[in-house]
Amino acid sequence: MRYANFTDEPSVNQDDFFMAEAIKEAKKALALDEVPIGAVIVHGGKIIGRGHNLTEQLNDVTAHAEMQAFTAAANFSGGKYLKDCTLYVTIEPCVMCAGAAYWTQISRIVYGASDPKRGFTQLSERIIHPKTDLLSGVKAEESTRLVQDFFMSKRNKT
Amino acid sequence: MRYANFTDEPSVNQDDFFMAEAIKEAKKALALDEVPIGAVIVHGGKIIGRGHNLTEQLNDVTAHAEMQAFTAAANFSGGKYLKDCTLYVTIEPCVMCAGAAYWTQISRIVYGASDPKRGFTQLSERIIHPKTDLLSGVKAEESTRLVQDFFMSKRNKT
Repeated sequence: MRYANFTDEPSVNQDDFFMAEAIKEAKKALALDEVPIGAVIVHGGKIIGRGHNLTEQLNDVTAHAEMQAFTAAANFSGGKYLKDCTLYVTIEPCVMCAGAAYWTQISRIVYGASDPKRGFTQLSERIIHPKTDLLSGVKAEESTRLVQDFFMSKRNKT
Repeated sequence: MRYANFTDEPSVNQDDFFMAEAIKEAKKALALDEVPIGAVIVHGGKIIGRGHNLTEQLNDVTAHAEMQAFTAAANFSGGKYLKDCTLYVTIEPCVMCAGAAYWTQISRIVYGASDPKRGFTQLSERIIHPKTDLLSGVKAEESTRLVQDFFMSKRNKT
C-alpha cells in the first residue's frame, strides 16, 4: 500500500497525485497486453485498493480495473461499503462499473478521460448514487494517450 | 453440472426448467443468510455456470448472482464471451449486472420477478446489447416470495 500525507479534503494536487497512481495501474495492465486502464481507491489520504484491467488474463469481461479496485478496497477495509472513499480511474467508468460504484456507496469518483462510446454518462448520470460527487478531466490526456497508443500498436501488428 | 435434454430453441418448458435451477441457486443463498437471488447460464440445453448472491459471505457488494454465474460460465467455456447463451436469474438484474451482461455479449436474458427499485429497466433497456433478447415473468411469484419472505423474517428478528 502507498501512503500519502494528505488530508481528507480533496485538492487539485491530491487528485493529480492519486490519478498518477491510477495511471501506474494502467501501465501494469499495458505490461500484460491488456487495455491499459487503472484505478485506485483512496480513504483518508491513503490508497486502500488498487486495480487494473485484467479481462484477458482472467478470461473475464467483467474484470475491469474498477471492479478489481472495489473488491480490493473492501477486502482491505473489512467493510462492504466504501463511504468516505474516492475512486480514481483513468478512463470514465462503463455502465457496469458505475452500477457497481452505486452499490459501494462511494463518496466521490474522479476519472481521467471521457469514454464517448461506453462511458456511463452517455446513458445517464443517474446510474451513480445522487450523493456521489463526480469529477472528470484529471490527467485526461495521459490516460487517453495510453489507450490510444495501445490500440494503435494492435492495429499496426495486424 | 446439470444436463437437460433440450434443444437450442428456447421453449416455455425449457425456461421453466432452467428458472427452477436458478431458484435452487437462490435457495443456496438463503441457506447462507444472503438475499436469495440465483442465476444459471445455459448453452445448448446445458448449464455451464451457476451463481448465487454472496455479498455478505464475500464482503463484496458486487458479488451478485449474475456476476458469479458470468465468471463461472466463462471459466467453464474457456471463452470470455457468452454468445449463444441464456442467463436465467430469479430477479431482474440491476444496472451493474445488466452492464456486465452487455460485455458478455449474451444472447438472451430471462428473469423472474421485476425489481421496481433497482432493476435496470427502470433506468433504460438500452443497457443490455440490442441483440440480447429479454423475457421476464418466468416463475416470478416464487422468485419474489423467496426475497419477500427473507426480508420479512429479518424484520421480525429485529
